[in-house]
Amino acid sequence: MQTDIIFLLDIAGVIAFAISGVLTAIRKRMDLFGILIIAFVTAIGGGTLRDLLIAEPVSWLHNTIYIKVIIITTVLAILFRNKLSYLGRTLFFFDTIGISIFTLIGLEKALNVGFPPLVCIATGTMTACFGGVIRDILANKIPIIFHKDIYATACILGGVMYFILHLFPLSNGLVFTIACLIIISVRSLAVYYNWQLPTIYKRTKR
Amino acid sequence: MQTDIIFLLDIAGVIAFAISGVLTAIRKRMDLFGILIIAFVTAIGGGTLRDLLIAEPVSWLHNTIYIKVIIITTVLAILFRNKLSYLGRTLFFFDTIGISIFTLIGLEKALNVGFPPLVCIATGTMTACFGGVIRDILANKIPIIFHKDIYATACILGGVMYFILHLFPLSNGLVFTIACLIIISVRSLAVYYNWQLPTIYKRTKR
Amino acid sequence: MQTDIIFLLDIAGVIAFAISGVLTAIRKRMDLFGILIIAFVTAIGGGTLRDLLIAEPVSWLHNTIYIKVIIITTVLAILFRNKLSYLGRTLFFFDTIGISIFTLIGLEKALNVGFPPLVCIATGTMTACFGGVIRDILANKIPIIFHKDIYATACILGGVMYFILHLFPLSNGLVFTIACLIIISVRSLAVYYNWQLPTIYKRTKR
Repeated sequence: MQTDIIFLLDIAGVIAFAISGVLTAIRKRMDLFGILIIAFVTAIGGGTLRDLLIAEPVSWLHNTIYIKVIIITTVLAILFRNKLSYLGRTLFFFDTIGISIFTLIGLEKALNVGFPPLVCIATGTMTACFGGVIRDILANKIPIIFHKDIYATACILGGVMYFILHLFPLSNGLVFTIACLIIISVRSLAVYYNWQLPTIYKRTKR
Repeated sequence: MQTDIIFLLDIAGVIAFAISGVLTAIRKRMDLFGILIIAFVTAIGGGTLRDLLIAEPVSWLHNTIYIKVIIITTVLAILFRNKLSYLGRTLFFFDTIGISIFTLIGLEKALNVGFPPLVCIATGTMTACFGGVIRDILANKIPIIFHKDIYATACILGGVMYFILHLFPLSNGLVFTIACLIIISVRSLAVYYNWQLPTIYKRTKR
Repeated sequence: MQTDIIFLLDIAGVIAFAISGVLTAIRKRMDLFGILIIAFVTAIGGGTLRDLLIAEPVSWLHNTIYIKVIIITTVLAILFRNKLSYLGRTLFFFDTIGISIFTLIGLEKALNVGFPPLVCIATGTMTACFGGVIRDILANKIPIIFHKDIYATACILGGVMYFILHLFPLSNGLVFTIACLIIISVRSLAVYYNWQLPTIYKRTKR
């Protein structure tokens, strides 16, 4: 895909993630500062962890567009917090795009500095998933992603497909796009049909 | 301000933060090792996170004075734990100094390696506030700073004023001092008058 | 000790730590992805934190043997989860070896890049202990190591002895081995005799 489009989708993801942080923080009755911080870590936590691990400069510190987008999103989300439920579908759409783009951006960032595929898939998945993990830890909950939601599995699948598709004579843009669409499809189907990972527990009432 | 004075105030802050860690750990009935670690992360957690993010060497690893001060503080705080309540005012004074110095040190450190003002204000606030956030996470609580206490807001205000004051022909030492005093005043007044950030919640019994 | 032996013991520790992560995650009824991540952070969390702090490349990202060992361990541990209780002693043995090796590897890694002894002892202890701390935080518990288990104390003792022994004309291999054995002995004796750190609390029913 073109860099411009990727950038726009990345920003869409940041907005969706920030809003998810705002909603979590409001549910925990945090104050304005708390809401801002949770919005922040949800949106940039995964990418930050990735950058620290692969020893690259932390992206949002070098490009303040992210800080600005998150602050504006947080202010708007707080002002219109009672209207956010009407945005359910749009938010889900943005969120799913965010996950797929974050995964592929994270994967390619590690790939570009020479990490092996296994590590790239891990950093991609981390970029998409760990913002939510840090959000839940700061809100004193077990990260939801460890319990249900095959969200992470969609990211891993997309990452694996990225490397498989590269075995064929396809342009990188095409591979990127297909891998994105795979993540989006798997995630959407999973939510629609309520797919879960196979459980290892006997079904009992929790 | 002179480097010597800043250093002394920094150490005062480290002591106050370590004691706050000790108190939290004792309240959670941790053992001696737990108390030491909580004292540690409270005192150096914010600065550590800042250094990792801006890719600078982690300061307490290169200057063992911090480790020594924290260990001695922890031992003394444990020995005199029943007397700490008499120190209420002194501790609050040290703590407030710590917050203001940590903010400005963190801000200037990021500024010196070329980050833009928005990022410097964020790293300054982080230096002052994230030790307490990590302390609360390790003690399995929602970070208090996300709920009340306009502590972080004082830091942000001080950081913003630092850059506004620099628009005037003032020496850096003077700007540093004024910004420090602003943080100290706002924080003290906030505690004295029980200021809170404007709430977005309807007032109900929690 | 020889590098080969250290490597094998290191892998034994990784396996034991990953299994401890799997058990914690299963107890919290996490799904397969959650179990994998908890196994991961338990096994490599301490070393990762160390590498970030001392600004060295994160080891498991550059040597995928760790990722593979953890994935295989997790799959096997899940498959044979009902049989793990029979492995109690073996797991404890591996775990104790892991702690001692992790401590010494962490200590020497910091020493090799020029950090002072106090910092090296801290990074060694961190390598051995913080995987478990992150595991417990992700599982929304107060880290067990802050409450009981003199595990960390054994690591600190071993680290201190490493530097004391180096004052004598002993080869590094011998010092490494003795320090390892000290950690293993202290930890085993502590568990056997139920040693605890001296408590500062009056004994009351919790």
